Amino acid sequence: MFFSINRLRNIIPTLFLLLTVYSVSAAYADTVSYVRYETAEGVRYGVLSGDVIEELSGGIFPVSQKTGKSLTRQNVRLLPPTDARKVFAVGMNFASHLASSSDLPPPLFLKLPSSLIGSGETITLPRDASNVHFEGELVLIIGKQAKNVSEADANDYIFGLTAGNDLSERSWQSRDLQWMRAKASDGFGPVGPVVVTGLDPNNLLLTTRLNGETVQQENTKNMIHKPAKVVSYLSRYFTLEPGDMIFMGTPGRTKALDVGDVVTVTIDGIGTLSNQIARE
Amino acid sequence: MFFSINRLRNIIPTLFLLLTVYSVSAAYADTVSYVRYETAEGVRYGVLSGDVIEELSGGIFPVSQKTGKSLTRQNVRLLPPTDARKVFAVGMNFASHLASSSDLPPPLFLKLPSSLIGSGETITLPRDASNVHFEGELVLIIGKQAKNVSEADANDYIFGLTAGNDLSERSWQSRDLQWMRAKASDGFGPVGPVVVTGLDPNNLLLTTRLNGETVQQENTKNMIHKPAKVVSYLSRYFTLEPGDMIFMGTPGRTKALDVGDVVTVTIDGIGTLSNQIARE
Repeated sequence: MFFSINRLRNIIPTLFLLLTVYSVSAAYADTVSYVRYETAEGVRYGVLSGDVIEELSGGIFPVSQKTGKSLTRQNVRLLPPTDARKVFAVGMNFASHLASSSDLPPPLFLKLPSSLIGSGETITLPRDASNVHFEGELVLIIGKQAKNVSEADANDYIFGLTAGNDLSERSWQSRDLQWMRAKASDGFGPVGPVVVTGLDPNNLLLTTRLNGETVQQENTKNMIHKPAKVVSYLSRYFTLEPGDMIFMGTPGRTKALDVGDVVTVTIDGIGTLSNQIARE
Repeated sequence: MFFSINRLRNIIPTLFLLLTVYSVSAAYADTVSYVRYETAEGVRYGVLSGDVIEELSGGIFPVSQKTGKSLTRQNVRLLPPTDARKVFAVGMNFASHLASSSDLPPPLFLKLPSSLIGSGETITLPRDASNVHFEGELVLIIGKQAKNVSEADANDYIFGLTAGNDLSERSWQSRDLQWMRAKASDGFGPVGPVVVTGLDPNNLLLTTRLNGETVQQENTKNMIHKPAKVVSYLSRYFTLEPGDMIFMGTPGRTKALDVGDVVTVTIDGIGTLSNQIARE
């Protein structure tokens, strides 16, 4: 034998390390990050690699060709990564926050396209909002029209993933007939910075930071209602369209935000969504 | 004297009749009805007079010029009268249905643009919907961008009015976390046939008929939260955009619908919205 048992034992940790490094890089090897941004000529889509945006000739449903033109990320204003017509959200999807039964349909509510703002944009609170909490979340982006799709097929309708902040005014949420202004006011849906294809939504570390301090951290493997189930269920009632978004629920505890606070939502493989709080 | 007192007394009823006829025709004299419809060349807007549609060169925000081309209403497929991005709805707005306090903000919820279908279209119920009720309603159409507008100015932001049916699945409405699928499923928002400018929203007779039988009838003067209040309140949280819709609440009682049923919502000065029920 070339290797004694003892020698094999010695290299096992090294093999595991190499395997881990390989797995992590392999997990992100086939991902692509798309951005939507505003230029003097209008709204554009691009592919982001590092700080470089390669401009696309059109949209991402389907992905259009590169124009050959490049920009630096710092020189553009990022927009929500798609022009969503519908914005759904799952409630009570982590036991660490509030648990719903995995045997029942997912508890759902609506946000609005007008709630959405991009990474780097200011969250401008309505004048009388006094108890607005952050909720860091994974967000699914629908890639093709979906109606009555099975759970087995549902993943094919998810184009990619982004990070989101499901801002919630707790006083309104408990007092109003429905959660409408509590969840869907202007600016209550920061999303971005990118939409990433090729990631597994069911195994991503999500971290929310308030002024740099970690306030939420959990792996999306703990989601009670999985993306495939939610997409399939929604498609029984709603024709899902490319660009539509689904906020997948928040883990752990949330806190009220003050003017000047900076909230970031980081998801491994996606990046960091960052927004500062202001008031009208 | 040319007229004796007695002779004057005799003609008073006639004078009143003439005044009434004049008032009614005057009330509608300055109204214009706009339709949105589909042709082989795409979606078009037009002015409807009787059964004749005079085609417009563009949209209605602002109203574009007539092209000179005319069509017959029966030869086109009517669409929801605007391409709404947001669809709001007021709950409990008639004491005859369910009363909310006029001293409090209006109770509100969301429908979806994908809920909307035109007059004449079939309402296709989701497979597992078993208790879907009609709700005949007046619907406001926003005409210009509105953010933080006062109640005194709010009427200026209402472009016109249409009729709507706020279809509601009562079992889901009572059981789900939020009213989302109960109120916003595909097809749960018939609207039309036209959007009418120049009408007073606060004095219109609304009549809902189920297979020809009157099942709801009330004047919109009984709305607890008036259009100006609702628009002003919404604009504190949401940037309203041209084409956005606000369903103003239903009067009286509602009933479950069966496959094959025809529901119509008639509003004086607007016309009749008509839809038949089917199932997936």
